[in-house]
Amino acid sequence: MKILVLHGSSRDAGNTEQLTNLALEGVPHTSIRLREKTIQPIHDQRHDEGGFNAVADDYDEVTEAVLTHDFLIFSTPIYWYGMSGHMKNYVDRWSQSLRDKRYSFKESLGQKQAYVITTGGDQPRLKGLPLIQQFQYVFSFVGMPFAGYIIGEGNKPSDIMSDQRAVEEAKIFNAWLKAKQ
Amino acid sequence: MKILVLHGSSRDAGNTEQLTNLALEGVPHTSIRLREKTIQPIHDQRHDEGGFNAVADDYDEVTEAVLTHDFLIFSTPIYWYGMSGHMKNYVDRWSQSLRDKRYSFKESLGQKQAYVITTGGDQPRLKGLPLIQQFQYVFSFVGMPFAGYIIGEGNKPSDIMSDQRAVEEAKIFNAWLKAKQ
Amino acid sequence: MKILVLHGSSRDAGNTEQLTNLALEGVPHTSIRLREKTIQPIHDQRHDEGGFNAVADDYDEVTEAVLTHDFLIFSTPIYWYGMSGHMKNYVDRWSQSLRDKRYSFKESLGQKQAYVITTGGDQPRLKGLPLIQQFQYVFSFVGMPFAGYIIGEGNKPSDIMSDQRAVEEAKIFNAWLKAKQ
Amino acid sequence: MKILVLHGSSRDAGNTEQLTNLALEGVPHTSIRLREKTIQPIHDQRHDEGGFNAVADDYDEVTEAVLTHDFLIFSTPIYWYGMSGHMKNYVDRWSQSLRDKRYSFKESLGQKQAYVITTGGDQPRLKGLPLIQQFQYVFSFVGMPFAGYIIGEGNKPSDIMSDQRAVEEAKIFNAWLKAKQ
Repeated sequence: MKILVLHGSSRDAGNTEQLTNLALEGVPHTSIRLREKTIQPIHDQRHDEGGFNAVADDYDEVTEAVLTHDFLIFSTPIYWYGMSGHMKNYVDRWSQSLRDKRYSFKESLGQKQAYVITTGGDQPRLKGLPLIQQFQYVFSFVGMPFAGYIIGEGNKPSDIMSDQRAVEEAKIFNAWLKAKQ
Repeated sequence: MKILVLHGSSRDAGNTEQLTNLALEGVPHTSIRLREKTIQPIHDQRHDEGGFNAVADDYDEVTEAVLTHDFLIFSTPIYWYGMSGHMKNYVDRWSQSLRDKRYSFKESLGQKQAYVITTGGDQPRLKGLPLIQQFQYVFSFVGMPFAGYIIGEGNKPSDIMSDQRAVEEAKIFNAWLKAKQ
Repeated sequence: MKILVLHGSSRDAGNTEQLTNLALEGVPHTSIRLREKTIQPIHDQRHDEGGFNAVADDYDEVTEAVLTHDFLIFSTPIYWYGMSGHMKNYVDRWSQSLRDKRYSFKESLGQKQAYVITTGGDQPRLKGLPLIQQFQYVFSFVGMPFAGYIIGEGNKPSDIMSDQRAVEEAKIFNAWLKAKQ
Repeated sequence: MKILVLHGSSRDAGNTEQLTNLALEGVPHTSIRLREKTIQPIHDQRHDEGGFNAVADDYDEVTEAVLTHDFLIFSTPIYWYGMSGHMKNYVDRWSQSLRDKRYSFKESLGQKQAYVITTGGDQPRLKGLPLIQQFQYVFSFVGMPFAGYIIGEGNKPSDIMSDQRAVEEAKIFNAWLKAKQ
């Protein structure tokens, strides 16, 4: 099982990344930090005659990584009760890939699984639920099973290591991933 | 009551804009199309020693408009069951304004009201609810009353005009806005 | 199209019933007030050897009405951010009908449509959304399309008539129902 | 800290009770099985001249237990994507206590904390979220902090013991409760 992590955080070594790293300790995987890529917001041209224009940025590179892995971990801090803009910009562009004749995008995603790791500072296990529900619809739209999620609490750097429950959940997920290797 | 519309759509004259225009017919207001602005995704530097670096883009210009109006309409299509990346990029940057000594950002927003107009093609009155809940938390965080929302259904250009319920709700909102002038 | 209204309210002529009556003005339909029926809470015997015991109450009578109509309107006030206990007691018992050899319960419901009318006094268009999401899962489980919903605001008797938006939505629904006759 | 568990399940030794028992191992507490009590659905008489009539059932007994404990655990299986009718009937009656001059009901609850333990058989970590959101509003209305929740997966008796994550979460909660003694 080839694992890809999409990091949505905008800062280095934030709580979400720390928790994700814990979950992936000793597990072979590919990591992409979306903040290190240039990805334009979508320009919705679904209804334009010529369809979508090609965009000269890093979207294709990320998408090729997505398509060549089996298990996708969406790792994003809760920014304003949603995924980060970095991640949203990326996901919005999927609309373009759905029309892209180079891929069978939806069919391909439908053979993968998705997982979400997120942390936030303001009651994330309650106020992060609309984000989980959003991911639920996103994954369901492309037919990709939602294998699970972890919500952690943290604000200042490294807070997350004191969230015993999130840490324990990351360890359980880690063991599960290892058993799948 | 000074009204500002933030358009999150990435295309011209889409369903969300049409519905919003209907709601604002004959109502003086300012419009900003976020797609016509350059707004970088946030770089979270809340915990950096020097705080946030200034960013040379159109964020400040939009935010000054936000701060000088009383009633904010967030008009966004449902993209992947959330607000558009254009709008998310903008809202994420509020974290920067919260630390910006030029403004009393939160206090100022707390004296405004917010409204959401959104449309989508995939059961938006059900699958758009996590987005409404996200806005609920966003507005609540800054103490800005959530005056209401309209969810419309449409996919192809102008579909929205056949959503009788959304059209009627836009008219009721229009009359309400006029009565506030 | 044979229409059945299940009234979940515990009082006479409350806001939810008023709004529902408005929606049904001039539309032939059957009404059941669950508060006038005796319906025991479920006793979950799915895993008991002998299965469910028969219960001597009005559940079967209501269920036979459900099965012989095509369009089901669940009309319930928002009590503590959910459907009323009267209605929940009824819906919980569906677990029993799923095992009842007299019916093809799920298949039968899957050929109907469902609609929800609800009112509440505490920001119902926001705080009533978990209830809508619950109904979404309930209807989806039995394969019954969720045709729509109306959320109204009201607390004291007849408040609802001042909720112009809910009244207008009820009228649109009324016209739609009439067109289906 | 005096702990009260309200069991909403309708069967003996179901998955929710098992998970709850695990969480409470070695922790002194009071248990009430709502299925063993007779609690009528609410009759909403808030707007009746004489207010609520007294009801001769076990509601008062349960409520006195609620009022004399500090930490309330709502333990309910997910029935049709909500709390059980047994539990909903009980909670609905709080409307009566809010008007009951014998108690300062809301003030009293505002000094307690609430916790939710729930299990379900159909993707409970996703489809149980509206229930968590409902509890969030319920507790918020009475000003009672929502200390946390555990969602477990199980259908057939004892399934829950194979849900390693829920079991681990119950143990963490158990240690937390013990530390509060």
